Amino acid sequence: MAVYTHVSDEALEAFLSAYDLGRALSFKGIAEGVENSNYLLETERGRFILTLFEKRVAQADLPYFIALKQHLAAAGFPCPAPVAARNGAALRVLEHRPALIVTFLQGLSPRRPTPAQCAGLGAALANMHLAARDFAMTRTNTLGAASWPRLFNDNVAGADALEAGLGVRIAGDLAALADFPAASLPQGTIHADLFPDNAFFEGDRFTGAIDFYFACTDALAYDLAICLNAWAFDDHAQGTDYNYTKGRRMIEAYQSVRPLSGAERAALPMLARGAAMRFFQTRFHDWTATPPGALVRPKNPLDYARRLDFHREAKGPEDYGA
Amino acid sequence: MAVYTHVSDEALEAFLSAYDLGRALSFKGIAEGVENSNYLLETERGRFILTLFEKRVAQADLPYFIALKQHLAAAGFPCPAPVAARNGAALRVLEHRPALIVTFLQGLSPRRPTPAQCAGLGAALANMHLAARDFAMTRTNTLGAASWPRLFNDNVAGADALEAGLGVRIAGDLAALADFPAASLPQGTIHADLFPDNAFFEGDRFTGAIDFYFACTDALAYDLAICLNAWAFDDHAQGTDYNYTKGRRMIEAYQSVRPLSGAERAALPMLARGAAMRFFQTRFHDWTATPPGALVRPKNPLDYARRLDFHREAKGPEDYGA
Repeated sequence: MAVYTHVSDEALEAFLSAYDLGRALSFKGIAEGVENSNYLLETERGRFILTLFEKRVAQADLPYFIALKQHLAAAGFPCPAPVAARNGAALRVLEHRPALIVTFLQGLSPRRPTPAQCAGLGAALANMHLAARDFAMTRTNTLGAASWPRLFNDNVAGADALEAGLGVRIAGDLAALADFPAASLPQGTIHADLFPDNAFFEGDRFTGAIDFYFACTDALAYDLAICLNAWAFDDHAQGTDYNYTKGRRMIEAYQSVRPLSGAERAALPMLARGAAMRFFQTRFHDWTATPPGALVRPKNPLDYARRLDFHREAKGPEDYGA
Repeated sequence: MAVYTHVSDEALEAFLSAYDLGRALSFKGIAEGVENSNYLLETERGRFILTLFEKRVAQADLPYFIALKQHLAAAGFPCPAPVAARNGAALRVLEHRPALIVTFLQGLSPRRPTPAQCAGLGAALANMHLAARDFAMTRTNTLGAASWPRLFNDNVAGADALEAGLGVRIAGDLAALADFPAASLPQGTIHADLFPDNAFFEGDRFTGAIDFYFACTDALAYDLAICLNAWAFDDHAQGTDYNYTKGRRMIEAYQSVRPLSGAERAALPMLARGAAMRFFQTRFHDWTATPPGALVRPKNPLDYARRLDFHREAKGPEDYGA
């Protein structure tokens, strides 16, 4: 949530001179995204987001992410569309960093999504999956099932320090997820991080998705399972509840655009459990790696431990409203 | 440079319902200002900045700052104009903090101001002084000359730790500034912090000033002296140079709108020395108060020690181009 790299006005002017965007009229660092420096840029031609990629995003993957956004935008899916310079290149260099201009998306990110917004998100996710069907590039999911035991690294004691008994439960979940079914299900391009932060709405109407920097090739239904975890649980002081109404509406809306196969539907509880494990592990990793007292506190992994509790007990897809 | 307070979409919607601004179309935290949380808010009626005041700005002073911006905007000076709710109140409450909506200003803050921008700034500063002539409220400059020895607190050792011999030089400057002439010069409302960060330009055309949270009643020429320190010195690895061209053009442009009196012109070197002392002392204070290794590094006070070196040797106003 910070601007890491400052851009001088001379550097911006020189950078913009390679585009057909006219002069800069306004340029403000925005607190969006934790991985990169983002600026809201207004020029004589409209509004844009300028991103400077900091170290954490693998530079070798940038062409994939940019091509995906170009593909989705061209197919009519509302997402930031990369803007090419006059020489045809969208990915350029500014202040010694890879830099990209994309179109600006209007809308607000919901903090507490409504059931109607969950439905809008479900339909949008299916639309994104269809729009990406003929996208030719692929990218391995580096945070797939194989990564979860590696991230956990048998740190039962660390998990127990977070909550008594958690270490054994996580180890049991990892064992149950050893034959994670994603690879046997219909594959495609997934967003893989479509949290409410990364979606915009005007009222209940979905207006776009951003932050494709975890996008990869994986089971389409796994993307839906990630969204169920991110949108259909209500976190509160006493714990976390699955909001059946939100989940059911998201799944129904998804299926109204792209019906799930029998195998996808049957796999939904395990996919949801895997999705919760993926976010538990990355948050647990960041949590244990951050010294106490650091200014930026990582997200508490316990929200996802609570989701795992739910998934562990789920009897079948009907428990999710599918 | 951070958003401190998060605003939920429900809270924003409830807050906006008291204004005639329509619905929110976009809402982004911006990395502007270090004291408050600032959001760029787009509604059906246009673009605005929403500020949530954090602890560091004295809440008792907020009515003064808001009235000043209202006065200046009404007088045609380009600055953020406070927007009142339907009940007439501009200062309201959001997420348990005082909150204010102001109009959005277009333009870019120069990182390295050009001589033409220094001229634009000088004319704008004089225009602001004239626009505020009939502003009825006053506010004491809490960072005036009396505060500098208090801030320094005889910390010769701390200054010497920053640079050998600095402590004695600062103590000598403070002695020389004991009869600081500001009180005897024409008084008015001054911005008191009009650094390039707080000014917007389109090319060389001044489009507005922001961040009036140090504004106060003091010598008008002292405001010009602050700007000479902030705009007309070139900092580089080897030290700091007064840029005579930039300073001269700023002073000339100021005088084209509001000519300096003979006493103001004669006092310019001492006013400039005092202005440098004011920023040296607050930076020195923040510098010594910040633990090593903190994520947010305060500004290095040595840039202002270098300006003091220049002012100490200045023979008269002609050394500044006046």
